[in-house]
Amino acid sequence: MNTFGRNLRLTTFGESHGKAMGGILDGMPGGVKIDMEVILRETARRRPGQSHLVTARNEKDIPELLSGLTDDMVTLGTPIGFIVRNTDHRSGDYGEMAKLYRPNHADFTYDMRYGLHEARGGGRASARETLNWVIGGAIARQLPCMKDITLQAEVISIGGITGTTEELASVVEEAMKRGDSVGGVVECVITGVPAGIGNPVFGKLHSRLAQAMMSINAAKGFEYGDGFAAASAYGTEQADIFISEEGHIQTKTNHSGGIQGGISNGMPITFKVAFKPTPTLLRDIETVDKEGNSSILKGKGRHDPCVALRAVPVVEAMAALVIADEMLETGKLNS
Amino acid sequence: MNTFGRNLRLTTFGESHGKAMGGILDGMPGGVKIDMEVILRETARRRPGQSHLVTARNEKDIPELLSGLTDDMVTLGTPIGFIVRNTDHRSGDYGEMAKLYRPNHADFTYDMRYGLHEARGGGRASARETLNWVIGGAIARQLPCMKDITLQAEVISIGGITGTTEELASVVEEAMKRGDSVGGVVECVITGVPAGIGNPVFGKLHSRLAQAMMSINAAKGFEYGDGFAAASAYGTEQADIFISEEGHIQTKTNHSGGIQGGISNGMPITFKVAFKPTPTLLRDIETVDKEGNSSILKGKGRHDPCVALRAVPVVEAMAALVIADEMLETGKLNS
Amino acid sequence: MNTFGRNLRLTTFGESHGKAMGGILDGMPGGVKIDMEVILRETARRRPGQSHLVTARNEKDIPELLSGLTDDMVTLGTPIGFIVRNTDHRSGDYGEMAKLYRPNHADFTYDMRYGLHEARGGGRASARETLNWVIGGAIARQLPCMKDITLQAEVISIGGITGTTEELASVVEEAMKRGDSVGGVVECVITGVPAGIGNPVFGKLHSRLAQAMMSINAAKGFEYGDGFAAASAYGTEQADIFISEEGHIQTKTNHSGGIQGGISNGMPITFKVAFKPTPTLLRDIETVDKEGNSSILKGKGRHDPCVALRAVPVVEAMAALVIADEMLETGKLNS
Amino acid sequence: MNTFGRNLRLTTFGESHGKAMGGILDGMPGGVKIDMEVILRETARRRPGQSHLVTARNEKDIPELLSGLTDDMVTLGTPIGFIVRNTDHRSGDYGEMAKLYRPNHADFTYDMRYGLHEARGGGRASARETLNWVIGGAIARQLPCMKDITLQAEVISIGGITGTTEELASVVEEAMKRGDSVGGVVECVITGVPAGIGNPVFGKLHSRLAQAMMSINAAKGFEYGDGFAAASAYGTEQADIFISEEGHIQTKTNHSGGIQGGISNGMPITFKVAFKPTPTLLRDIETVDKEGNSSILKGKGRHDPCVALRAVPVVEAMAALVIADEMLETGKLNS
Repeated sequence: MNTFGRNLRLTTFGESHGKAMGGILDGMPGGVKIDMEVILRETARRRPGQSHLVTARNEKDIPELLSGLTDDMVTLGTPIGFIVRNTDHRSGDYGEMAKLYRPNHADFTYDMRYGLHEARGGGRASARETLNWVIGGAIARQLPCMKDITLQAEVISIGGITGTTEELASVVEEAMKRGDSVGGVVECVITGVPAGIGNPVFGKLHSRLAQAMMSINAAKGFEYGDGFAAASAYGTEQADIFISEEGHIQTKTNHSGGIQGGISNGMPITFKVAFKPTPTLLRDIETVDKEGNSSILKGKGRHDPCVALRAVPVVEAMAALVIADEMLETGKLNS
Repeated sequence: MNTFGRNLRLTTFGESHGKAMGGILDGMPGGVKIDMEVILRETARRRPGQSHLVTARNEKDIPELLSGLTDDMVTLGTPIGFIVRNTDHRSGDYGEMAKLYRPNHADFTYDMRYGLHEARGGGRASARETLNWVIGGAIARQLPCMKDITLQAEVISIGGITGTTEELASVVEEAMKRGDSVGGVVECVITGVPAGIGNPVFGKLHSRLAQAMMSINAAKGFEYGDGFAAASAYGTEQADIFISEEGHIQTKTNHSGGIQGGISNGMPITFKVAFKPTPTLLRDIETVDKEGNSSILKGKGRHDPCVALRAVPVVEAMAALVIADEMLETGKLNS
Repeated sequence: MNTFGRNLRLTTFGESHGKAMGGILDGMPGGVKIDMEVILRETARRRPGQSHLVTARNEKDIPELLSGLTDDMVTLGTPIGFIVRNTDHRSGDYGEMAKLYRPNHADFTYDMRYGLHEARGGGRASARETLNWVIGGAIARQLPCMKDITLQAEVISIGGITGTTEELASVVEEAMKRGDSVGGVVECVITGVPAGIGNPVFGKLHSRLAQAMMSINAAKGFEYGDGFAAASAYGTEQADIFISEEGHIQTKTNHSGGIQGGISNGMPITFKVAFKPTPTLLRDIETVDKEGNSSILKGKGRHDPCVALRAVPVVEAMAALVIADEMLETGKLNS
Repeated sequence: MNTFGRNLRLTTFGESHGKAMGGILDGMPGGVKIDMEVILRETARRRPGQSHLVTARNEKDIPELLSGLTDDMVTLGTPIGFIVRNTDHRSGDYGEMAKLYRPNHADFTYDMRYGLHEARGGGRASARETLNWVIGGAIARQLPCMKDITLQAEVISIGGITGTTEELASVVEEAMKRGDSVGGVVECVITGVPAGIGNPVFGKLHSRLAQAMMSINAAKGFEYGDGFAAASAYGTEQADIFISEEGHIQTKTNHSGGIQGGISNGMPITFKVAFKPTPTLLRDIETVDKEGNSSILKGKGRHDPCVALRAVPVVEAMAALVIADEMLETGKLNS
């Protein structure tokens, strides 16, 4: 449950308000030079407190790499262990929540699952866990087989509005003013993946991407290529006609989103992830306590009004882990 | 790649135009009475040739169960091996296709992946593989822990049209007349799943459902609860308020689709799967051959104009495998 | 529990007195020509009824390969499904046993584990299951990466006696005359494995061989290289001194048995497996029934007086599966 | 490769001369009170520098538990991350070794496997890795399902000599004086395991114990019950006759070592592990360097003359991980 991947496996630990987050990235081949700046850049991108649009927690999030590397940061082929200390936790904020079930949070379901309440800010259900994923993804991106591959995610709509960054920001600001939150869609485009990556049957590339993306907190939907729009279309409209240019076979259009039969066809891989509004609101909201008594949950604490914004580097990190895993997999069969 | 599940594992084999399909379902506890009629009913639901709307192949699809059961069909706790002979295969239909890349099919990507062409009707990429899944799902549904659980899938829109069965059928008929195909959306509702099923982090219930559904041929998108609509909504609109009725905590609304934080909350689990139009058309279509030469692919052969129709029992089967797997998983931890 | 291997995975099914044995070998790369004669030769080697020293069951054991191969027996890279029908089962022989616990058999432990008794000749505990392994191993041996590798097992002692084949046979005959059974040791030597195969930590080559060998029915011990004798020795006696001959580094001696630190060093891999005497005796023996009442188990039925004899091709098959798996694994990292 | 277990999974990292060792123990149910003293006691047992018979490295080996626990040390059901800083490493001692292949060490095979030399004291091949296992085992032992189970390992022979602790110690002292090392056998007895633990086919309890024990550095052989002696015996001598005492079925003798058909029968589980002499000697020894040139490896550095002595708590830890894993597994099926 806490391990992701097959050839490149990320196993993680850490409760958001515990001592530390951390993980083990196993399967990295030896001899790969790792640039710490890339890791810091990616963790900085997902860090709270960067602008007025995201939560005000101020955490440095400096990972310490404990193994798997020489002193000059070359991989040894052994597992890379890493930790990030949790420095800025104020568990007092969560006192009341420990007694009341927050709507759309995992409080109630965790109680049903485990029979005990983990009061440290939601424990493993917290989005802080995605810090581990961003670190793993930032290392995976540095594999030699990834060097011609670009992964680029961005928020393409918020609250149903598409537009410029300014327009999207104003939707979030409006929601914040009302103590409300708002959903959004993140699109990711991956270029440079060679044709022939992925697997049939239960290992389809888009199936693994779906699993990865739906692991991200607040994700409600995944589609690749034309996605749900393809369900409204006719076959004649969706045909990606093959053409050959200078001996290189490609398709005229890319309704398929770069994947056919679960395997990459060399075109850009495109997918979208839908994120619901943050369930935490800065308004009072009715709920029940553990005994089922009606109660009012006071709106307070810190939260992101639009989690889609902070999900962008997480989408890229999970995509990097999936693509790197498949690149290593295929390497095996080709040799 | 050919194994699905953790506690209940389905491993499958078979090329659509080879000798047989088959699989091994491992993890079924002993002492479970299996009704062969349930298996035959489910395989009949997905069988081609049932109406004028689906492909005309007439295959009996009678599975033979080879192990794991007493003579009176009670499980032994040992793996259940099963096979289905392929009787009605006419590989001649596929002669031309072996040389040309069919648009949106897996021909090209399989060549890129494996460096050889499997001419037997697409091999493992064929939808015939889903017969194995339906058999596995039909057995999984009969677990005692599944007896209060209902899984019901149906096509809710075709070609962008929602409506009655007759209206949807006429959209398909229109497409057939033109030699075209059309996409559709399947919705699945699962009731009776107790609160507390699923896992955090990488084992979220909706993440596993997404992986399962995106494994189905022609699937392009997955969403649960309000899905992509939630990305256009505000937090205040999406809050599923907890209420307590006669000591039973539930939510007033079900925007969450029965899953919060990756774990079931006792409400109906709802999700939708988008299916693209069948890529096989009964029209001539331009393409290239393996050397990259332009060519025309003649429209012929057999195909389903709307794969969403035949996907319905497959969606249920894969959902049954996921839910049964999670029910067995949780049983472990509660004991 | 019914799957073995990581890159090359064998999943099996079948009760000894059920309809069929069978399995799925997943992970074979495409383009490998499979010789059915090799499979038949190996299954013939383990078949009962070949001489007066082994059990008299006369089973043809002709496997049917159902998938994963072209008509001219070239692998497709898809899983190879196979079955062997059980033709010569006389379940009447086992009537009494269904009520009494046979000493050193799995009857009692299976009851404790599963709470029901599988009367079909021991079900999955039967040595007939190893037929599946031999088929899997016979396919694995035909991988191109295995062509310079020889795997050769033989019985080196029976009842504590080492000697010629005739001497060992007479020990077995003596035991048979008395209605007794006798243990034996099988040694296996694998040549041609290149240096660098295997993994550190939990994936050590000898650890995987130990797991594989201890899966064989009646196996009681495993040792590689000097094994238990090394525990009685001094470091100066055990040092395998490195020498270089024509640029090729090897060791003067091979106390290590071809494996150092869990990874092959290019020397012959040598290991031994201890097999206990068959627990089935042709003598009356005291025991209890399921209610704990004292009873006498009549000596009858069919059995092998020395299972070590029939284990020889099984030892080779499991060794072939392990080595092939590791060869495929390493191929991945080198590319 | 760096993960052990199925229901209770230990994933580890750390090179012996790197920054830290560590791991993640995943699968611990919630609500279990963990006693830090038990962990410290077990790590102290395996620590170097405790007596004149073991290596003189003085490491405190205080693990820091970073997650998965409340402040008062109750498990949360989430993964337990832990690290141990490496404080006393003197990598200078290993300078020469980086150029020469040490006999019976993993230097040569690692070079062949990975194509690069990890000079930090052998990296993952070092016995320091077993510190992670001892920590994992010390936590696993504290599961409620383990409370009636005792695991007791001890050295039963050294250099072929059995006898009192004093006699064994003098064998080691003699070897030390000569700059030599010596092998030994560790026996482990596990009591209190209920009948019905383990699995058939590839998941046999003794097969998993074999895999676990053969993962320990310097292990050369594994046997359970009568082991290799059973291969010299007759069936009539090995029969463990069932008797019923006060409604409790057990066996008169325990040649089976508490396991029949891969599943526990309620009798004590007994097994032995053979350890070779430490390959590091305090004598000069001939070898080759990486280019194959003959050279002399100077005897120096620190080493344990008899690794069997320090393996005792490691054997117990690995046994605890296997038994706990199987106890959790069976819990699943019983519910």
